[in-house]
Amino acid sequence: MLSDIEIAQQADMHKITQIAAQLGIQPDELEPYGQYKAKLSDALEKRVAQNPAGKLILVTAINPTPAGEGKTTTTVGLGQAMAKIGRNAIIALREPSLGPVFGVKGGAAGGGYSQVIPMEDINLHFTGDIHAITAANNLLCAMIDNHIQQGNALDIDTRRITFKRCLDMNDRALRNLVVGMGGPANGVPREDHFMITVASEVMAILCLATDITDLKTRLGKIIIGYSRSGKILYASDLQAQGAMAALLKDALKPNLVQTLENTPCLIHGGPFANIAHGCNSVRATRLALKLADYVITEAGFGSDLGAEKFMDIKCRYAGLTPNAIVLVATIRALKYNGGIPKDKCSEPNVDAMQAGMVNLEAHIENLQKFGVPIVVAINRFAADTDEEIAALEQFCKAKGADFALSEVFAKGGEGGRDLAQKVVAATEKPGSFHYLYDLDKPVKEKIETITTKIYGAAKVAYSADAEAAIKEIEAAGSGNLPVCIAKTQYSLSDDPNKLGRPTGFTVSAAVVRLLNGAGFIVVETGAIMTMPGLPAKPAACQIDIDADGNISGLF
Amino acid sequence: MLSDIEIAQQADMHKITQIAAQLGIQPDELEPYGQYKAKLSDALEKRVAQNPAGKLILVTAINPTPAGEGKTTTTVGLGQAMAKIGRNAIIALREPSLGPVFGVKGGAAGGGYSQVIPMEDINLHFTGDIHAITAANNLLCAMIDNHIQQGNALDIDTRRITFKRCLDMNDRALRNLVVGMGGPANGVPREDHFMITVASEVMAILCLATDITDLKTRLGKIIIGYSRSGKILYASDLQAQGAMAALLKDALKPNLVQTLENTPCLIHGGPFANIAHGCNSVRATRLALKLADYVITEAGFGSDLGAEKFMDIKCRYAGLTPNAIVLVATIRALKYNGGIPKDKCSEPNVDAMQAGMVNLEAHIENLQKFGVPIVVAINRFAADTDEEIAALEQFCKAKGADFALSEVFAKGGEGGRDLAQKVVAATEKPGSFHYLYDLDKPVKEKIETITTKIYGAAKVAYSADAEAAIKEIEAAGSGNLPVCIAKTQYSLSDDPNKLGRPTGFTVSAAVVRLLNGAGFIVVETGAIMTMPGLPAKPAACQIDIDADGNISGLF
Repeated sequence: MLSDIEIAQQADMHKITQIAAQLGIQPDELEPYGQYKAKLSDALEKRVAQNPAGKLILVTAINPTPAGEGKTTTTVGLGQAMAKIGRNAIIALREPSLGPVFGVKGGAAGGGYSQVIPMEDINLHFTGDIHAITAANNLLCAMIDNHIQQGNALDIDTRRITFKRCLDMNDRALRNLVVGMGGPANGVPREDHFMITVASEVMAILCLATDITDLKTRLGKIIIGYSRSGKILYASDLQAQGAMAALLKDALKPNLVQTLENTPCLIHGGPFANIAHGCNSVRATRLALKLADYVITEAGFGSDLGAEKFMDIKCRYAGLTPNAIVLVATIRALKYNGGIPKDKCSEPNVDAMQAGMVNLEAHIENLQKFGVPIVVAINRFAADTDEEIAALEQFCKAKGADFALSEVFAKGGEGGRDLAQKVVAATEKPGSFHYLYDLDKPVKEKIETITTKIYGAAKVAYSADAEAAIKEIEAAGSGNLPVCIAKTQYSLSDDPNKLGRPTGFTVSAAVVRLLNGAGFIVVETGAIMTMPGLPAKPAACQIDIDADGNISGLF
Repeated sequence: MLSDIEIAQQADMHKITQIAAQLGIQPDELEPYGQYKAKLSDALEKRVAQNPAGKLILVTAINPTPAGEGKTTTTVGLGQAMAKIGRNAIIALREPSLGPVFGVKGGAAGGGYSQVIPMEDINLHFTGDIHAITAANNLLCAMIDNHIQQGNALDIDTRRITFKRCLDMNDRALRNLVVGMGGPANGVPREDHFMITVASEVMAILCLATDITDLKTRLGKIIIGYSRSGKILYASDLQAQGAMAALLKDALKPNLVQTLENTPCLIHGGPFANIAHGCNSVRATRLALKLADYVITEAGFGSDLGAEKFMDIKCRYAGLTPNAIVLVATIRALKYNGGIPKDKCSEPNVDAMQAGMVNLEAHIENLQKFGVPIVVAINRFAADTDEEIAALEQFCKAKGADFALSEVFAKGGEGGRDLAQKVVAATEKPGSFHYLYDLDKPVKEKIETITTKIYGAAKVAYSADAEAAIKEIEAAGSGNLPVCIAKTQYSLSDDPNKLGRPTGFTVSAAVVRLLNGAGFIVVETGAIMTMPGLPAKPAACQIDIDADGNISGLF
């Protein structure tokens, strides 16, 4: 089989004006970026505001394993399959970050015959949204340090600046640094840190903002740190929000691309799924619902992180109601959860699969708590046996979830017909969507609702800092915000080594922070990596471009 | 009179497809970025390669003063004026950096009725070129630190890493820092520095590269530092050039926009004019010459810095021959050079102007050394008296330079008719263009040719480091590259306080560095600022955007 980039480069790509026309978008409502990418204008959003909304389908997964699940591939393939069964669908995805592209993960545009294209552009700068976020983030940082340098009228405590610089790069040397060295002309020395841009609060804000006014308000509410007397300081205290919003003017507009089979796809926003809420922008999802009958979207990592935040943060803020959930798993990954090492996961082993199915079971039960119909999608590999598949199907049905095999990696939309039919049927079932917790509960109760009901934890151990932060947040009147727990994606617990369905464990609430602009309370269960590093052999070393501009080595 | 941004927002902007059509560019040769900006494809470059080349006109200036000269305004206005006298012209400019936009300088898209538009987009992210350079630059930096972290097979001396990180931001706190702190998992601590992106060698490379292959070769040749045994290390030692070039794929394509009067303008590349060569890309200028009869371009700062480098670096590498030079001055600025403070420069004072004309005289005589016909363009202010103008005109004619008044700021192209006619006439004169020095001369001789013939210095004082660096460069066989002197723009000397036409002074050659990828030898005359800071009241505080996306406060 060809590599992903080879398949992508052989695609019969339509002009983006044609893809737009297929959605009823007029040329003037489109801001093209080259021939195959475009931003969708505010005018379009206004024109279609009164259209009936389509059905919203969320694709999520079991806990990720090294064996691979193929969540984005399934999302793209399902979108393509909708056309095969005569349905009108649009896909809504996150934007890939450059960091992982040059690190280990490679791109994030699906795989095989279920990819979004132009794959190279999407994986590199795309339409510049992430660079705009970097610039807005770092403008605020420059204004903070400049304010200190110019006399520090706000009395900013240089030991308590919480807002960090960012770059869209995997660069561990920037995790911890001392800036402002070199004497009086060159700033005031202080400890600082860079995050990867997708972990920045500005990214979370962009993804939740409904329009420019909302964006500017949220930017102004960002907490930058504390004064020496302990007063909370905001971006608005530096009058930074106007210039930051100006930098984000175009980044706020959703981007239109297509799949290998010319299914329209909105790719917009890409917040981290641990430190932030991990799904594409509210604006893209809302607009997609006005443009097609079915919107297929995904949330980051497993359903314990991505889907829970999709429901409790994104859907709540945006007033969205998901009509069906696709839960992606592979038989290989279930065996891995059953204790089989990665290199043995291709060997037939019903017992190991059944031992690992407890992870799938937890995700099914968790998602049922939101009152949305579920279809389990098994991303099929050649090594999967009929016996394994039959056992798995029986299990899902017993748990009250629909079941479908997906072969969209190898076959494109054609390989997702059964899945698409099951999903359409699921959206026609009566749903009773509701959030997991009410906002007016105490912060600790909200945290414990998630850790108990979703993670399966016995209790939460709060650090002294976390206790103090919760008190401060509640005293400041911000206790009524949703909670965003940052933990490992590899386990339902906060210990990446606990596979399957761990029980009786304690979750650590080590750090609690208010992302006041984004509008949620982050609870970090331990050391959460917000600036990845490059591996010993970075993917960057393999990436090349020839004299005609053809890129190779992206995957 | 309206503000620049108000004038820009009221412009009768044509669709970029229409501007392109006016140049004979077909829709498929255009990569639009929204409705009013576009990149020009490699296919276009190939198709027009055999077209006859137009005339090349360089706009430069006397040494900048706080009184203002209006070089970009004159460049844009001259382009507009060409259409008024029935000539077919295209303008080629540099891209503005975000740093100054949020600092003090404001935008860099001309002024009054001679601006390039869409002004907000050009001054903010434009088509993302500068962000792409930031990413390519910082990818190399991440790969350097990662290489050290992963075992340091190249034995990189962490005390002698010469390649720096960059951001397109005025951020003095990033001038000097310690990175890699926080223990073994977080890198190896070392001193590091950020430059503003436009000062990066990658920017200089992008502007000089003729195609992707040349770009990749130059990127691979970047010197990153030294091994502990003193061996020079290159970007190619880390296999970084392929991924860096992939990141710059689109940034290498020239950008098309228009002026207020719909004159086509290519805006592409924006290297600093002290540390680098300070003019737009070779690709843009070459392509412009194939698309119109007259190409109006500009070089940074005064002619001592920008024009000299334009001739000796850019024209030499690109095989370009300028057909005329426009030397911009104002009567106010001449009075300032004659010792009058800024706030008194609007008062009539022929004597002060004549005292300051020595600065103009030096620039005329310097430019005559390149063998290109000169037109002095006086950017007219209301306070200029007839007596002052007459004296100035007489002086220029006596020096063998044509003379024209320009009122393009207040009147647009209509205010540049006389200038345009004089310029067209100048291009029809027989020229005898030649470089100032031959490449095969010793490095010191090349330095001294510039400092003596252009700056008017008596001698050069080399630091011990500079002496050693010159020996090393010549020993490595790189002595045959052009020289790029980084000094203050405010004086012909290396002392910003020496106005007029200083004589008898010594230029310090403090630091000599080989920009091996860009292909020139930088000579720093003192502490050259490569990362500006924000002022006490940053322009960013005034920039805002309303609910409809209209930006205010940019100037």
